Amino acid sequence: MNLQRKRMLDSVIKQNGLGSLFLWRPDELVLVLGYMPLWGVSFLIYTDDDDPVLFVPESEPKDILPKNITIKKFPCGDMSCKDPWKVLFNMMKETLIEKRRHHLPVSFIRNIGGTAPCMMSGEQPPLPGNLIDSLSAITGLGYRDATGDLLKLYCYKTADDIQHLKLTHKVASIAVKTFYENLKTGISESELAGLIENEVQRMTGHDGINFSQAWPLVQSGINAVYGGRYNRSTGRKFQNAEMVMVEMGICVNGYWADITRTGQTGELDVHQKKIFHTVLEAQQKAIAMMRPGVTMGAVDMVARNHIKDAGLGKFFNHALGHHVGFRYHDFGPTLSPGCDAVIEEGMLLTVEPGIYGEEINCGVRIEDNILITKDGNEILSDYDRLLTMQ
Amino acid sequence: MNLQRKRMLDSVIKQNGLGSLFLWRPDELVLVLGYMPLWGVSFLIYTDDDDPVLFVPESEPKDILPKNITIKKFPCGDMSCKDPWKVLFNMMKETLIEKRRHHLPVSFIRNIGGTAPCMMSGEQPPLPGNLIDSLSAITGLGYRDATGDLLKLYCYKTADDIQHLKLTHKVASIAVKTFYENLKTGISESELAGLIENEVQRMTGHDGINFSQAWPLVQSGINAVYGGRYNRSTGRKFQNAEMVMVEMGICVNGYWADITRTGQTGELDVHQKKIFHTVLEAQQKAIAMMRPGVTMGAVDMVARNHIKDAGLGKFFNHALGHHVGFRYHDFGPTLSPGCDAVIEEGMLLTVEPGIYGEEINCGVRIEDNILITKDGNEILSDYDRLLTMQ
Repeated sequence: MNLQRKRMLDSVIKQNGLGSLFLWRPDELVLVLGYMPLWGVSFLIYTDDDDPVLFVPESEPKDILPKNITIKKFPCGDMSCKDPWKVLFNMMKETLIEKRRHHLPVSFIRNIGGTAPCMMSGEQPPLPGNLIDSLSAITGLGYRDATGDLLKLYCYKTADDIQHLKLTHKVASIAVKTFYENLKTGISESELAGLIENEVQRMTGHDGINFSQAWPLVQSGINAVYGGRYNRSTGRKFQNAEMVMVEMGICVNGYWADITRTGQTGELDVHQKKIFHTVLEAQQKAIAMMRPGVTMGAVDMVARNHIKDAGLGKFFNHALGHHVGFRYHDFGPTLSPGCDAVIEEGMLLTVEPGIYGEEINCGVRIEDNILITKDGNEILSDYDRLLTMQ
Repeated sequence: MNLQRKRMLDSVIKQNGLGSLFLWRPDELVLVLGYMPLWGVSFLIYTDDDDPVLFVPESEPKDILPKNITIKKFPCGDMSCKDPWKVLFNMMKETLIEKRRHHLPVSFIRNIGGTAPCMMSGEQPPLPGNLIDSLSAITGLGYRDATGDLLKLYCYKTADDIQHLKLTHKVASIAVKTFYENLKTGISESELAGLIENEVQRMTGHDGINFSQAWPLVQSGINAVYGGRYNRSTGRKFQNAEMVMVEMGICVNGYWADITRTGQTGELDVHQKKIFHTVLEAQQKAIAMMRPGVTMGAVDMVARNHIKDAGLGKFFNHALGHHVGFRYHDFGPTLSPGCDAVIEEGMLLTVEPGIYGEEINCGVRIEDNILITKDGNEILSDYDRLLTMQ
């Protein structure tokens, strides 16, 4: 497996005096194994000085399973098995005994909400009601909380992850192109969203893509006024000379890009152009200073001050950015006022200033995904970001 | 609110000696209020002799909120609030005190997995890690488990729900039409899936549709052999004279249809046609006997025996059907061997026999959604179901 990630996991185990870790949420399995489950009911036992063991339902497709790792199948989806979960928990217990970790504490993330979807994204996995208690009971010493340390791992992208994330951003470039190409007076928000989703989903099954979805949300004209509070597509048709915003959470094989573009349907007036360029300048200023050692609050402040100086400060009503990659929104500190967390190499952060208001009758956001390098950054989503395609 | 549903909820409260119910998962809010949250962080306090109170984040769109119900906003999404969850839990406590229910037990569903997605379906709601404990601590007498009774409610669709479900099935008819119309040699599974998703998503914002998504999964030729274990689209292109299967979980405003069709790309041989018609006959026989009083196992047996009699029994490797409507797969007993649960009026059940096998080099499933009426049933998905569109 990914050795960079292994070092991080081993350190969580040591620091917390654990015998093993259990991981099962889709984003946890992507984080540790680069494996996005189809059914969302695969379970991993991770130990520090032995190979991890992955339990998958018999119905999981073979070709998406991770290579070079011990895989055990349990009878989930097999009609003849009355209680596949009991079978799984017993198999996990036996494995811990074999590994001599059954008398040591285990940790896992107990939170009930907040996970990236599995490949069956129409429905979350049908996990049993007693899952947390059952997992806690598998080891003799029970559960020890290391949630904070586990969530911190989401903030660091390894070299392997970055390769996967570049594939996601390649798919995202097609989504952005589709947005600009179809941005015309007379078509509706949901029509444009449908076209983008079509272009992204049709890439599934090609060039190493097992799963691709865009979840585009398009807001136009006055609808974009609410873009700082929520994103959604409606049936509103684009009118001439207005701005249109698309928000996308593009997922390829479990790796996410979070991208926003704002375009125009026709020549804008001076007032609209000023708002657009204020957002773009704020974003570019913020990105320019992102490197290891800078605090997240400092980056937020530069963008926020730029918008303030243009007299538009009250219309920027959300944080500047967040971690992204294993989920649409990864865990971790945000680029927000006063945040003294320090930016480090290997982080992937969104930078997404926005200006929205009923008084100004429009909404603008531009969002890119910035990979922090040793001495600066790389914009993974470095596509067209002006009002029209270049 | 929906009086039929209210009677069921009141009865759960009485039978379990509860003061109130808390509901927050997207499918729970659809079940009780017909309201599909955008953010997925809305919370309902339901009491039996007083109006329910709905807590929504300030960032929730106004026009999707339920009418004629008390709504209180909490500052989720408001950057200036450090701990919106604490604010929410305090507001919930105050409301219980006002309602004089703070010294009575509360119930809610604690299960960590298994919920329908909210409108932001790209990511599940970011609920706090301590949610279950915090909710349990709101009342003086704490939590009392009534999960079984609450989950039972998913099995009964009220007159209001049926109206919503008919809209979903109207959207689904377009998805089915798009499947047949584009089923041609040379296009790929994911291309066809993309086209279907496009047609369904572009309906968002029209005719009372706030949210529409199809999650289509297309499997063709030899890929459909795995259709009894999993569904997914790949880049495989359709060849001439083969069968192609589409599985769809179509969600409109939080109400679900679960539909499968199998079509052909060109004239099939006798062997393929026999398999297809065996599945279709099994399905039609099963549907014909569905009415109040019949057991679920009896319906399963009729379909299973039909397939067995054709010498294909071992290729039908899953249950015949399940409840559907508030989720892609609703809770409750299934149409499966030996199930002695009785079919009742108001249930909505899928009927989905299938035949899949490497030996027979193909996979076929036909799935419809059957509403149980007073003395029979109504097929909500009564569209074309032959190998080609009629």
